[in-house]
Amino acid sequence: MTFFFKVKTVEEVLELIHGFEPVTEERVPLRDSFSRVLSRDILSPEDLPGFQRSSVDGYAISARDSFGASESLPAFLKVVGEIGMGNLPSFQVKQGQAAKIATGGMLPEGADSVVMVEYCHALDEKTIEISKAGSPQENVILPDDDFKKGSLVLPKGSRLRPQDVGILAGLGFNEIGVYQRPKVAIISTGDEVVPINEKPRPGEVRDVNTYTLSSFCHQERAVPELIGLCRDNFEQLRKMIQDGLQRADTVWISGGSSVGTRDLTLKVFESFEGMEILVHGISISPGKPTIIARRGRQIIFGLPGHTASAMVVAEVFLMPFLSKLSGEKSFAIEEYQVVRARLSRNIESASGRDDFVRVKLIKGDGEWIAEPLFGKSGLISTLVDADGLLRIGRNAEGLYQDQIVEVMVFRSSKGAVR
Amino acid sequence: MTFFFKVKTVEEVLELIHGFEPVTEERVPLRDSFSRVLSRDILSPEDLPGFQRSSVDGYAISARDSFGASESLPAFLKVVGEIGMGNLPSFQVKQGQAAKIATGGMLPEGADSVVMVEYCHALDEKTIEISKAGSPQENVILPDDDFKKGSLVLPKGSRLRPQDVGILAGLGFNEIGVYQRPKVAIISTGDEVVPINEKPRPGEVRDVNTYTLSSFCHQERAVPELIGLCRDNFEQLRKMIQDGLQRADTVWISGGSSVGTRDLTLKVFESFEGMEILVHGISISPGKPTIIARRGRQIIFGLPGHTASAMVVAEVFLMPFLSKLSGEKSFAIEEYQVVRARLSRNIESASGRDDFVRVKLIKGDGEWIAEPLFGKSGLISTLVDADGLLRIGRNAEGLYQDQIVEVMVFRSSKGAVR
Repeated sequence: MTFFFKVKTVEEVLELIHGFEPVTEERVPLRDSFSRVLSRDILSPEDLPGFQRSSVDGYAISARDSFGASESLPAFLKVVGEIGMGNLPSFQVKQGQAAKIATGGMLPEGADSVVMVEYCHALDEKTIEISKAGSPQENVILPDDDFKKGSLVLPKGSRLRPQDVGILAGLGFNEIGVYQRPKVAIISTGDEVVPINEKPRPGEVRDVNTYTLSSFCHQERAVPELIGLCRDNFEQLRKMIQDGLQRADTVWISGGSSVGTRDLTLKVFESFEGMEILVHGISISPGKPTIIARRGRQIIFGLPGHTASAMVVAEVFLMPFLSKLSGEKSFAIEEYQVVRARLSRNIESASGRDDFVRVKLIKGDGEWIAEPLFGKSGLISTLVDADGLLRIGRNAEGLYQDQIVEVMVFRSSKGAVR
Repeated sequence: MTFFFKVKTVEEVLELIHGFEPVTEERVPLRDSFSRVLSRDILSPEDLPGFQRSSVDGYAISARDSFGASESLPAFLKVVGEIGMGNLPSFQVKQGQAAKIATGGMLPEGADSVVMVEYCHALDEKTIEISKAGSPQENVILPDDDFKKGSLVLPKGSRLRPQDVGILAGLGFNEIGVYQRPKVAIISTGDEVVPINEKPRPGEVRDVNTYTLSSFCHQERAVPELIGLCRDNFEQLRKMIQDGLQRADTVWISGGSSVGTRDLTLKVFESFEGMEILVHGISISPGKPTIIARRGRQIIFGLPGHTASAMVVAEVFLMPFLSKLSGEKSFAIEEYQVVRARLSRNIESASGRDDFVRVKLIKGDGEWIAEPLFGKSGLISTLVDADGLLRIGRNAEGLYQDQIVEVMVFRSSKGAVR
């Protein structure tokens, strides 16, 4: 029964999570690759754009033909043609010549500079005067200006943003190697919990956690697998965990805020051969009765039954856990989006544990006010009112009114983010 | 030809967008409702939790039986039963009595307080001593503590977060009224643009914008409808816009960074009966040659062909536009996630327009350093290197090195957000 010694700090648990391995790879069409995580470094297969391109509307010239040109002493050039978009120019630009070119057009042979149309004045159909000296490569994108063949475009572990998908399109990647989305088996337990389409009798409540946790998975781009509702029953819970282990990369069991049901969950964990209890209790509030176990490469979380507590554990630990499973290179609780705000009142805190207080962000006079939301534990409404969490470290005895604090804003709380 | 007078400022365009109407409603199952936007206020159909619930493990008592109790003078109570989870207690707690109760259990009739197990000591199977006075409602969740019947749970226009979906589950909503996801028709134009699975010949480039813009739609929870690639041809573009207007709520045409193709786009817009040109040019850089038109309730955007310029327009205008179309109640460019950073160098800026400079965020000594990424216009690589945009207002002539600036972080640039 060594698990009594396994109460860990926030940092210890995060360090543990940092050691977990990502899920396996797959290939997906580029059009489905937004927000996926690269499983391999992407090197440029070619020079991009691959040819000399104009970045303005104007005239392609040899820069030396414009040297010394000014408004009072313009240079005169002969227009020998116009470059069609997408075409290899069929003519050269020789000394004293120019070719009309649009943004994105390919420079003809002999030209090394483009003079913007604003500095060109057509004297007749075949002659322009240029009132500004150009320099070589001015307004010209070189063949490898965007990417050089063989250079690193995006490293393994990048989560693809719109512009990243764009550059992969530009380089001609039709499909791409990414990590699979982590599959999360979700089990909600408790004799008092009923499905949401049933009318609870006195003493019963509807299954909130399946919905918060599966939505959380969607938010983190993981795939929830709903295993279902489970009674406080050893055999049923064991069977459902087994089912979860077969169907998913990780299993999350929520429920059991009472000592009895927590003990049940632990007993079921220990009944699996090769199951190792890594964490039994974390020194945070809320969320202390969290259990983390490992079986082979699979991690199993026993989460508190109170929705608000389970969500704190999700924000603090399951978010970096899913990030790690997803293969993302960035990893840290500090990577949270943070808003600096003035604290509206004193908060006391017990030392020896990290407190995560739900706060509402209110627009003050040129600054944000963080208003702590206190309420009986077990309420969901405070979580709905909250915009984020405020962490009080385990060596602090509290925070003072008017202190400037950093609020970890919920990722989906868009309205409050500045 | 009144459109020559339609160059607008950033604020004018945002105000215009603010006046647009959201798309229509639909009903979705709650399990699919994460990140959807409520189209109606949600009122609580019942009291939640609906019964008196214990928030701790302990003994349910009548508080007055513990008045005056202390370690030196404990109160003695008779244990008359244990409350099963999810059950209506079959007995009462009378004066001098207590009932064992677990977290989440329903208080029996006669009990109004729960004493935590830490303060209870079992003397024998039927008797406990209590070493702490309890007060009425202590450790008890009242029937309407979470939500009172008829109270506002979530207002219309809320984008549902995990905890919001959770509370709707708790209240028994099986399905929910939301705004449809906006459908966006995407057309990429240019004689030089080829599909990504084709090898470009000299002078040609692959279609980047379809991929950046459709990924951007996914990021903003809109639904891209890929209409396809279009040559610089009046009839073909007209036909594809018509197709887009039939299939989507809004049409985005990117391409035409040259004056000629911009004029073509404008001519096609004007060939539609009832099409009104709202904006022809915005005083920003990059992104100036943006066109916004309206036909009935549908809005059509003509976007710059340069990917980097199109993405600035997307970040600054299409994000609030999609937010508005989605029915979100929050709306403002200020709602961007912002990171304060120290500027690494001076930046000059032309007055009379808003400049949006791509910047990289680098971790400095306890602060962020914003490093401007300059490069020839038309490059995509600077956008891939960037973590966000820095806005230089149109009355500013520039920003100074070491000035503290606010960087608008790309929504998907998770790694850099603090």
